[in-house]
Amino acid sequence: MSYLKLLPFALLLVACQPKVETPEQANVRIGAESAAAKRAIDSLDVEFTKHFNLGHAEVVADFYTENAHLMPPNGRIAPGREGIMVTFKALFAMTPALKLMPTEVVANGPIAVERGIYTMTMTPPGAKEAVADTGKYLVHWQLVEGKWLIVEDIWNSDLPAK
Amino acid sequence: MSYLKLLPFALLLVACQPKVETPEQANVRIGAESAAAKRAIDSLDVEFTKHFNLGHAEVVADFYTENAHLMPPNGRIAPGREGIMVTFKALFAMTPALKLMPTEVVANGPIAVERGIYTMTMTPPGAKEAVADTGKYLVHWQLVEGKWLIVEDIWNSDLPAK
Repeated sequence: MSYLKLLPFALLLVACQPKVETPEQANVRIGAESAAAKRAIDSLDVEFTKHFNLGHAEVVADFYTENAHLMPPNGRIAPGREGIMVTFKALFAMTPALKLMPTEVVANGPIAVERGIYTMTMTPPGAKEAVADTGKYLVHWQLVEGKWLIVEDIWNSDLPAK
Repeated sequence: MSYLKLLPFALLLVACQPKVETPEQANVRIGAESAAAKRAIDSLDVEFTKHFNLGHAEVVADFYTENAHLMPPNGRIAPGREGIMVTFKALFAMTPALKLMPTEVVANGPIAVERGIYTMTMTPPGAKEAVADTGKYLVHWQLVEGKWLIVEDIWNSDLPAK
């Protein structure tokens, strides 16, 4: 009878083991979180592209964290939302038409990585007609107060260097 | 006295609340995991660079997951460890000398993102002397059975397009 009194304590010991995920459980959870993040980021990419193609530099810069790093090809890193805005303003003078095709998103909690391909046409200064580019990108996203923001954004062209 | 008998059950209820992290706790944990991942990845970058500069294509390819994506500028994505090995073999014919300077690593559990800058000299076919490049990179790492492997690897040049 005295042993029976210990039952609740035994339950306490069993039930309160630290809940450490097995690698398999982590994989399942990360798979579900990645699918959810992909849906959210797909939508954000649609919004991003819309404002990008309308030349809304300030709206586009707001997709980035305050201290984000924009890493454009053939140019220096633009650090910070302000620097990113200035970089996009210069780019928007070339009236770019961007299309993003997100391929894969991997997310774990507040961190996500998106890989995709892009096409873009733009008219560089002095060019008589638009030039077309196609390439790939990698974007590091962070969930900040329930909203996915871009921390790092890098891309490059598939086309041979001229 | 009968209420006292309920004490263990009350303890059970209190102690076994699901352990949900607050955003602050998550930030602290992610900060610690990022610092640990940075140390591990710094070491891997040293090893990677050593074998890269010795032209060991198979050893370098083994830093990548089986289904990794190598995203070189001015070229198509090389998918898979085998494709990555072939891509590096072609690059190593130009006797590149690479230097990686990792700037930041953010990690959460088995996912990490590394940002850094690189310098590389190489001698393209027909060139009389080596050309120097400098740029930035973003690498998505995954912890696989206790070992960090590269999932996605993209970089681009800071220098103006020629």
